[in-house]
Amino acid sequence: MFRTHTCGELRLQNAGTEVTLAGWVQTVRKFGSITFVDLRDRYGITQAVFDEELNAELDAQPLGREFVLQVKGKVIERSNKNPQLPTGEIEIAVSAFSILNKSAVPPFTIQDDTDGGDDLRMRYRYLDLRRGAVKRNLELRYAVNRATREYLHQQGFMDIETPFLIKSTPEGARDFVVPSRMNAGEFYALPQSPQTFKQLLMVSGYDRYYQIVKCFRDEDLRADRQPEFTQIDCEMAFVEQEDILNMFEGLIKYIFKQVKGIDYLEKVERMTWEDAMWHYGIDKPDIRFGMKVANLKVAPTVFLDKQFLLSSSPLATQSGFGVFDNAETVVAIAVPGAAEYTRKQLDELTDWVKRPQIGMQGLMNIKFNADGSLKSSVDKFFNEEQLKAFAAYVDAKPGDLILILAGAEERTRKAISELRLYLGERLGLRKKDEFKLLWVLDFPLFEYDEEGNRWVARHHPFTSPKPSQIEEMINNNPVIEAAAEYLKHPYANIKANAYDMVLNGNEIGGGSIRIYQRELQEKMFAALGMSKEEAQHKFGFLLGAFEYGAPPHGGIAFGFDRLCSILGGSESIRDFIAFPKNNSGRDVMLDAPSSVDNKQLEELNIKLDLK
Amino acid sequence: MFRTHTCGELRLQNAGTEVTLAGWVQTVRKFGSITFVDLRDRYGITQAVFDEELNAELDAQPLGREFVLQVKGKVIERSNKNPQLPTGEIEIAVSAFSILNKSAVPPFTIQDDTDGGDDLRMRYRYLDLRRGAVKRNLELRYAVNRATREYLHQQGFMDIETPFLIKSTPEGARDFVVPSRMNAGEFYALPQSPQTFKQLLMVSGYDRYYQIVKCFRDEDLRADRQPEFTQIDCEMAFVEQEDILNMFEGLIKYIFKQVKGIDYLEKVERMTWEDAMWHYGIDKPDIRFGMKVANLKVAPTVFLDKQFLLSSSPLATQSGFGVFDNAETVVAIAVPGAAEYTRKQLDELTDWVKRPQIGMQGLMNIKFNADGSLKSSVDKFFNEEQLKAFAAYVDAKPGDLILILAGAEERTRKAISELRLYLGERLGLRKKDEFKLLWVLDFPLFEYDEEGNRWVARHHPFTSPKPSQIEEMINNNPVIEAAAEYLKHPYANIKANAYDMVLNGNEIGGGSIRIYQRELQEKMFAALGMSKEEAQHKFGFLLGAFEYGAPPHGGIAFGFDRLCSILGGSESIRDFIAFPKNNSGRDVMLDAPSSVDNKQLEELNIKLDLK
Repeated sequence: MFRTHTCGELRLQNAGTEVTLAGWVQTVRKFGSITFVDLRDRYGITQAVFDEELNAELDAQPLGREFVLQVKGKVIERSNKNPQLPTGEIEIAVSAFSILNKSAVPPFTIQDDTDGGDDLRMRYRYLDLRRGAVKRNLELRYAVNRATREYLHQQGFMDIETPFLIKSTPEGARDFVVPSRMNAGEFYALPQSPQTFKQLLMVSGYDRYYQIVKCFRDEDLRADRQPEFTQIDCEMAFVEQEDILNMFEGLIKYIFKQVKGIDYLEKVERMTWEDAMWHYGIDKPDIRFGMKVANLKVAPTVFLDKQFLLSSSPLATQSGFGVFDNAETVVAIAVPGAAEYTRKQLDELTDWVKRPQIGMQGLMNIKFNADGSLKSSVDKFFNEEQLKAFAAYVDAKPGDLILILAGAEERTRKAISELRLYLGERLGLRKKDEFKLLWVLDFPLFEYDEEGNRWVARHHPFTSPKPSQIEEMINNNPVIEAAAEYLKHPYANIKANAYDMVLNGNEIGGGSIRIYQRELQEKMFAALGMSKEEAQHKFGFLLGAFEYGAPPHGGIAFGFDRLCSILGGSESIRDFIAFPKNNSGRDVMLDAPSSVDNKQLEELNIKLDLK
Repeated sequence: MFRTHTCGELRLQNAGTEVTLAGWVQTVRKFGSITFVDLRDRYGITQAVFDEELNAELDAQPLGREFVLQVKGKVIERSNKNPQLPTGEIEIAVSAFSILNKSAVPPFTIQDDTDGGDDLRMRYRYLDLRRGAVKRNLELRYAVNRATREYLHQQGFMDIETPFLIKSTPEGARDFVVPSRMNAGEFYALPQSPQTFKQLLMVSGYDRYYQIVKCFRDEDLRADRQPEFTQIDCEMAFVEQEDILNMFEGLIKYIFKQVKGIDYLEKVERMTWEDAMWHYGIDKPDIRFGMKVANLKVAPTVFLDKQFLLSSSPLATQSGFGVFDNAETVVAIAVPGAAEYTRKQLDELTDWVKRPQIGMQGLMNIKFNADGSLKSSVDKFFNEEQLKAFAAYVDAKPGDLILILAGAEERTRKAISELRLYLGERLGLRKKDEFKLLWVLDFPLFEYDEEGNRWVARHHPFTSPKPSQIEEMINNNPVIEAAAEYLKHPYANIKANAYDMVLNGNEIGGGSIRIYQRELQEKMFAALGMSKEEAQHKFGFLLGAFEYGAPPHGGIAFGFDRLCSILGGSESIRDFIAFPKNNSGRDVMLDAPSSVDNKQLEELNIKLDLK
């Protein structure tokens, strides 16, 4: 037997027991003729003491960091207790030891605060995984996994595995494909999600399905994207949107409770997509803090239902200030208590919005001083009265700094949203230990793909329009006649029965009520520019299934990696994946992908075609 | 709200309640002006009654099988109770209904005993999944999944996800590969198992790992193989073989208890690989019944440790019967109570062993009649005294039929094993509701691949030799000099620290204690004919990991699909997979694999190379 106890298990009440421990050498400290070894395993650290006699043996076969060591001995009370360690009241008086395996000197130190760079740690991921910080992340991930399964089981969901070798139906992201040896010239695809399978399971009557499942997307990787990622994938039949919202805010609250010990008692807030864009400039607002966007001016083609709100804007009539007059959109935020910002600080903010990834021309400000006076970078164009009107419209308080951006609708809105988050962060308003959930509802069903000059499904082509708009959609001509005018097109105003769950400004999940009538599904494919033949070729099985009694259904999928990283207080999902890939999609530890031999390719009926 | 209750929920105590149910129309029966509808969902069937008034509405929009129907009404006590149904004491007096979706006439009937053939049911798998028989299989699968996770969690195991896009290191079975767009000319492979990752996790200190995980093998598919299959994959550190055997017989017993309600109290039997081959002719014996193989004659190059047992065989000295004298191997079984078999029955058995898949030349028999007399098909060559010696050696009782096969060692041993199973089945000795576990231990470390004229790892190249044989292996020259003499080669006698778990004659799991020393692992790769460069290219990461304090470790993997099918009493794993593929690896419902367009291939830097 290699051990009788783990290195995290022994306490004072075990004193006097003969034990055997095994683990890794964390530290070796020699004091005269006595050696202290901190022995580490998954469960903790226990101190082992080697007396004079054993020290002679130790001299013959010296211990190094990360050696695998087995010690036998008696548990004794420590004279010099360590209150930091759960085992800190005892130590093992070693009577015999055995080196189970040696270790070369690790390329970085195995401790929370390591000296290893990213690349080195990725290459030696098996050593990085030994660090307490990474271990705690994987433990948290397992806890979220467990809580998810518990809750969904209690709610009558069944885990049903769906296939990984499926059919390539590229829509949006690229598929990874897998050449088939047995079916020459043909390819499987790896699933981007089990979407159609879970819908088929609803047609089959498994009315509460879930899976924690790997999905694959061959996209150019941004900093925090992985080509393979994990989803909590769920679907329910005989439900309306309200049922799904309740069920899955229940799930997240359960996870909060089980994993973080947080009682999230209040009802999760809800906001329409339009309100989110209007008030926060983004469809996944961080509502831990205010600093809402004030819309001073907005292009007349967007936010059709909110245009009337602009009548009270100080810019409702001509301003005479060219930057505002020529801009499609002018938006502002009031930064609490920042009226005192220096010229240098303001310049820094201006530089920040001028960076290419934000792309604004400039940043205007109005200081609403504590004494009530107003001072602005656009004094030339606006008198005090007008500035007051600005301050009132932006809902600024004395002491606030009003920041104003002007430009094209999409870019400007995105910029004000980023600026808000940046300042929220700077002002400490985005507290790590505060968790704030939000449902964003009523997303547009379609969005316009400028590049492809066509309408695409914003969520996916299986999403149902709002019930009240189904008729409208079925009856409207799906051919887009004036693409340039797309924002005015009726499709732009069709909203989906779709919902996202947002946590602290991150989309952690999204889903929709699905189409379950063949006729509507065919209309949807047609609206996306798919011919009948193409629709039949790609999704014939689903259209077929809808002919045999498909029930009303809907679902949701949560990004499991992201959810874990937020709960763990980290920006990076990589820290929560045991063996992640780098930004080029490489596993640098394995050195994968790699070349394969010609014989293998020949069997697969393919050859390389390098440019 | 679509429903207040499910179709399996209502009982007599609900009588008087107003309810809403939704489900599928199982049957419609009309009696005069009253219509009875059996409404079905995942949870059961409830009878709904439509009175005269509603019948007029029903006439206007008639219901068909598999229509999706919502009914509102009052729960009432049935006059004509159905004790077969949990809901059989009540029915719903329908006050309003709504057809949620229509259904075309299904291509086969949705009931346990369907009229649909295999192909049709695969094509319309979403309808096949509605059948109670298939649903119970998936429910059983989920129950096994749950029990597995519960037990392993209680035992301190952590579910850690390993990657799917890995490196191609073909050993044995072919890898499925995935061309990388971002790394032109390179390929990922899909894992045949997470073997090396779970070993790395042991190196990382996660001493109890598990996963229920998809694995992939691009093999020519036999009847009951799937290109993607699911494994319960486990690994432990600081363990010896004994620890693993105890831990995982605990798992299977827990599953028996939770899923089947069976208390499997006895210790699981253990048998060496050599004993299994000797006594049953196979490495996965069904020990629910006896009928052990008697070894009358065996080639002198095999079973070196058992040769001495042959000295008491009636064939220990020359028999004078050419068939026996010229055969490498002569084996027999005593079939209980079959001495009365007719000529016709014996001829049938002879034909059975002569079929190509068994491939024997003939079948000899000795009838040990109830009166003690003996009568044989080889009377010419053996007198009564000699036949008695046969009967004694085979341990036959009066009334038994002794069947004897002679021929080449491998084929003959396989044949007697198959004949034993065939007769066990015929005699009703393989009872569906009896579950008998067995550990088979001490497998050979290597086996000879006649086709490739080389030694291959029987389990995989990471399996440790028996501790007592490690030195022998390290010191032996790995180059095979006389391949034809392979059975005499020292490697043939090196046994592995490997174990299989066998349930009713099926291998449900297998594993081993692993190599954890770089030196031994290198020796192993060399023994398998891998050059240092090749070993470094394929498994450099693992060899590297072994340099940084790899602990002793071992593990096991269970075939999840197979385990479920045996627990469900079925021969076919397909019945326990939601969306299985056919024998050509096709998903006939999706019509996958399929061709992909040239643009997609171009992006992947490959092109077709069809013969």
